[in-house]
Amino acid sequence: MAMTGVLRPGHAVVRVLDLDESVKFYTDVMGLKETGRDNSGRVYFKCNEEHDHNSFVIRKADSAGLDAFAFKVLNNATLNELEGKLKDYGVTTERVPAGEMLETGERVRFKLPTEHVIELYAQKTDVGNGIGYVNPEAFQQGLKGINPLRMDHCLIYGPDIDANRKLFEEVLGFGMVEHILLEDGKTDLATWLSCGTKAHDIAMVRHGEPAKLHHVSFLLETWEQVLRAADIMSMHRVSIDIGPTRHGVTRGTTIYFFDPSGNRMETFCGGNYWYPDMPPITWTWDEVGAGVFYHDRKLNERFLSVVT
Amino acid sequence: MAMTGVLRPGHAVVRVLDLDESVKFYTDVMGLKETGRDNSGRVYFKCNEEHDHNSFVIRKADSAGLDAFAFKVLNNATLNELEGKLKDYGVTTERVPAGEMLETGERVRFKLPTEHVIELYAQKTDVGNGIGYVNPEAFQQGLKGINPLRMDHCLIYGPDIDANRKLFEEVLGFGMVEHILLEDGKTDLATWLSCGTKAHDIAMVRHGEPAKLHHVSFLLETWEQVLRAADIMSMHRVSIDIGPTRHGVTRGTTIYFFDPSGNRMETFCGGNYWYPDMPPITWTWDEVGAGVFYHDRKLNERFLSVVT
Amino acid sequence: MAMTGVLRPGHAVVRVLDLDESVKFYTDVMGLKETGRDNSGRVYFKCNEEHDHNSFVIRKADSAGLDAFAFKVLNNATLNELEGKLKDYGVTTERVPAGEMLETGERVRFKLPTEHVIELYAQKTDVGNGIGYVNPEAFQQGLKGINPLRMDHCLIYGPDIDANRKLFEEVLGFGMVEHILLEDGKTDLATWLSCGTKAHDIAMVRHGEPAKLHHVSFLLETWEQVLRAADIMSMHRVSIDIGPTRHGVTRGTTIYFFDPSGNRMETFCGGNYWYPDMPPITWTWDEVGAGVFYHDRKLNERFLSVVT
Amino acid sequence: MAMTGVLRPGHAVVRVLDLDESVKFYTDVMGLKETGRDNSGRVYFKCNEEHDHNSFVIRKADSAGLDAFAFKVLNNATLNELEGKLKDYGVTTERVPAGEMLETGERVRFKLPTEHVIELYAQKTDVGNGIGYVNPEAFQQGLKGINPLRMDHCLIYGPDIDANRKLFEEVLGFGMVEHILLEDGKTDLATWLSCGTKAHDIAMVRHGEPAKLHHVSFLLETWEQVLRAADIMSMHRVSIDIGPTRHGVTRGTTIYFFDPSGNRMETFCGGNYWYPDMPPITWTWDEVGAGVFYHDRKLNERFLSVVT
Repeated sequence: MAMTGVLRPGHAVVRVLDLDESVKFYTDVMGLKETGRDNSGRVYFKCNEEHDHNSFVIRKADSAGLDAFAFKVLNNATLNELEGKLKDYGVTTERVPAGEMLETGERVRFKLPTEHVIELYAQKTDVGNGIGYVNPEAFQQGLKGINPLRMDHCLIYGPDIDANRKLFEEVLGFGMVEHILLEDGKTDLATWLSCGTKAHDIAMVRHGEPAKLHHVSFLLETWEQVLRAADIMSMHRVSIDIGPTRHGVTRGTTIYFFDPSGNRMETFCGGNYWYPDMPPITWTWDEVGAGVFYHDRKLNERFLSVVT
Repeated sequence: MAMTGVLRPGHAVVRVLDLDESVKFYTDVMGLKETGRDNSGRVYFKCNEEHDHNSFVIRKADSAGLDAFAFKVLNNATLNELEGKLKDYGVTTERVPAGEMLETGERVRFKLPTEHVIELYAQKTDVGNGIGYVNPEAFQQGLKGINPLRMDHCLIYGPDIDANRKLFEEVLGFGMVEHILLEDGKTDLATWLSCGTKAHDIAMVRHGEPAKLHHVSFLLETWEQVLRAADIMSMHRVSIDIGPTRHGVTRGTTIYFFDPSGNRMETFCGGNYWYPDMPPITWTWDEVGAGVFYHDRKLNERFLSVVT
Repeated sequence: MAMTGVLRPGHAVVRVLDLDESVKFYTDVMGLKETGRDNSGRVYFKCNEEHDHNSFVIRKADSAGLDAFAFKVLNNATLNELEGKLKDYGVTTERVPAGEMLETGERVRFKLPTEHVIELYAQKTDVGNGIGYVNPEAFQQGLKGINPLRMDHCLIYGPDIDANRKLFEEVLGFGMVEHILLEDGKTDLATWLSCGTKAHDIAMVRHGEPAKLHHVSFLLETWEQVLRAADIMSMHRVSIDIGPTRHGVTRGTTIYFFDPSGNRMETFCGGNYWYPDMPPITWTWDEVGAGVFYHDRKLNERFLSVVT
Repeated sequence: MAMTGVLRPGHAVVRVLDLDESVKFYTDVMGLKETGRDNSGRVYFKCNEEHDHNSFVIRKADSAGLDAFAFKVLNNATLNELEGKLKDYGVTTERVPAGEMLETGERVRFKLPTEHVIELYAQKTDVGNGIGYVNPEAFQQGLKGINPLRMDHCLIYGPDIDANRKLFEEVLGFGMVEHILLEDGKTDLATWLSCGTKAHDIAMVRHGEPAKLHHVSFLLETWEQVLRAADIMSMHRVSIDIGPTRHGVTRGTTIYFFDPSGNRMETFCGGNYWYPDMPPITWTWDEVGAGVFYHDRKLNERFLSVVT
């Protein structure tokens, strides 16, 4: 199998301050489909086009932020193999039993050097994307809200992103697609890593505090859908951080915005594909502005400071 | 590495009847960049956005058609490993020395059961996509013609596509993404296979004659670029087979058209992504029309009969 | 007032064979909003974005076709003035009392030389476009179907289109924007006429039989909406005549398709604007194909023969 | 004639600080076509798609700003008639002889109450849009830069915009399409006026200083072209004020940016059409932010203060 090992981002678990308000936001504005609630109070969502039971999960807490970000791996053999590699690498892993999350198999949980919780799992129930596997129509009609194609990636903030990258590359088989250098021309301010052929499956920015979330990103199909997303955000008085605009890094188009708890979310569209024979793209410190926001060519102050 | 083995389609070598007319077509209309000519008369092209030296090669011949379709693999170790697997599977392989094609490493060549020539290689010179690896701009300005992002896939016609599929799946690690069944509800009329996360890297249709080419496909970024491509074809009096329209299979948008030698080409855009945990999508005989041309929901007679 | 006289197409009244099936089609597939039914059995629709009470009306009959096509004029004074001009020109006019059509003022009705019934009126109740006249949002959410912006124009077929054009130009203040010449290089096969700044408000093709309808056209906002319209047609098994494609004439993009009674409809998008200081664009007989269907550069046989 | 009187914006004459730098900007970045230079040092441009000889003119001066904004009227009779009306209304008019501007007929010049210079003219040489009036192709290939469709409108700043509006409505036949009210709920902060069927041909904002320019706007065909425009601006290090985003007023999409002299320019796309039977849309003071920048729903400080 050419595409093997870690397949793709599988689910993000995000803390929210008010559950009802958040369910309303992720359902009515984002257009996610609620697929279930569990005994511990977690609410599960999927994008309509996704096949697996859930890709985005929220739980009520006293502070916003990211509980865990999970990747789906090819199969149970891969899960076992990767857990072995993590242990060999000196990482403490934990097994979370199947069913602890709805419709989700056993998970291998561990902490990154930046203290973010990462999970790997091989099984999540295929509940379909509403158009079936036989003679599917082009799309489902009658869906509401922004309605992204999939939960796409996340950007995390924390101190030792070099150690993070090393772990992702050496243990989990990711490759670095792009990076931004600090003024010294050597140290990474930020790195974008891929486990498949996407421009990024996870990205990270160097930051004083550990375990911070910059944003979870959802994929849109077209630039026209990006405009429509911004319109819908306006109609619902969603606080837009920036956009619609383009990133220099990845060349994708973007809107950053905040959920009712202050978690930054993104709708992302387009951008580069990647294969592991391509060398990484480097952004130098003097062009960090263009790397992040290609049109303005300068950072807004929130990009480096506002995280949950 | 998660993305490993066979990476992606690397180059297609296509026979044309008139070299100058064809160079003009692929340069002015398609907007490919000519990157070289060799002693045997082959002319090499790449899409502007591609990094490797060539992805589409033409040579003068008495009849149109496909000489070879090649895949790039991760590295030389992979090349050796896959050659070993092919031999173990009973396939006769041949080594074509590095440099036999411009800026291209050693190739492993073999024939599919349908008699199409397939090549694997690990090395092709990275000549860049014109915007560099350091602080790249969003795109190159001043390019002409249709200007696709990459050579994307091909569709081949031949008798024993079951044996083809078996070889691609069992030896080369491809997965079947979609297939169309014949009236018996069992036999595949056509299959779409992926080696990575694309909706297809190669596809095949059951057909009486071996070694036939239905089309080579080039990727466009947006549906607006599809319209622009059709406009440019019209301006150059290119014979359009069908489109702009949508395929049911893959959900991609498409134009089929003919090069001056009668080779069918495609501009393709959008469509599904794929991961190996997804079951294949099945199209039944009664909906074959919608599978191929989603809007008309019927085949034109050329789809099943006109090949080179 | 710079924009005065005849403002724009106001309503089309179309005959259908089965009322329920047609209501379902125009509501669910086209996404029109039903705004009322009258005692004579007519069903009234408007596009969601239109302000006036109705723009498309159907009635049950034994044969499909066009009962009448109406234009809204600036005010009652204009209506009287234009009726006077029509009479002076020798045209027999009839007054249809206010209220004969729902929410519609008095109409001046007359027949074109091609025997099509044309109506002029100055008043139709403004029922709004759902977003109001105070701080409107960008669009209404939750609408279904193709959901065009407005009923845009029609194309009629009949014998003496020269006399039609003369009447539209000399009496009603239209201008000719484009025309296609027959083989003799003198006689018009077809003309496109505008009363404002659109590429056409009505068009006509020379044809043996009088009073025939080629199509009524609805405006879409973007080429992406054209694709979505074709997808929705496919989902509802609507018979598509041709498209998505582009017209050479007007440069607009198009899908022609048939309602359940066989009336051809169009979704139209983009294209030229026009001002009366611009000379008409001429299409010669040898390029009639490109004029009508720009990508294929040839007519399909249905374009000149299938009318209702 | 239904469309009569004042047809549309014809040309803007703008002051720049450095002629060569400005010619380079309007040619390479904006993609306008230079059509001539006159003895007084003015440089003339047109958009490639426009038919008339010029629509945008620059001259070197010590301060940036707008010399004049001109409208094309239907014909010489209209020009005379409108001059008579202006005089009757108490406006001092001046005749500028034909040929004073290249390829432009006699102009009637007058000052608005806000001291902006407005010109009316009936004749400008049709130099074509590069695709001709006979069997035109869909567009010209090989054009560079942003390449807007036309000079579309301007927004001016000055004190007595009520008197301006009265003059445009009562003398020149414009209608008010939208307006924003100040806190008192009565006084207009801004008005958008149309002479045809566009959402605005000229707009004005109440401001302490007279004769100020907020921006001249150029029309783009699609939202994808808006993205491409922003990309091209970034490549050329153009200072973007805001965008890509949407206006609430007109619902058009927009980028505001600055030419090398600090004149704000706009690329505008889409938005409402208008007919004189439609009541104006009102924006109240509490929603002025959404009216101007629909996504952010707040003004940036530059919108009300930075003018030339």
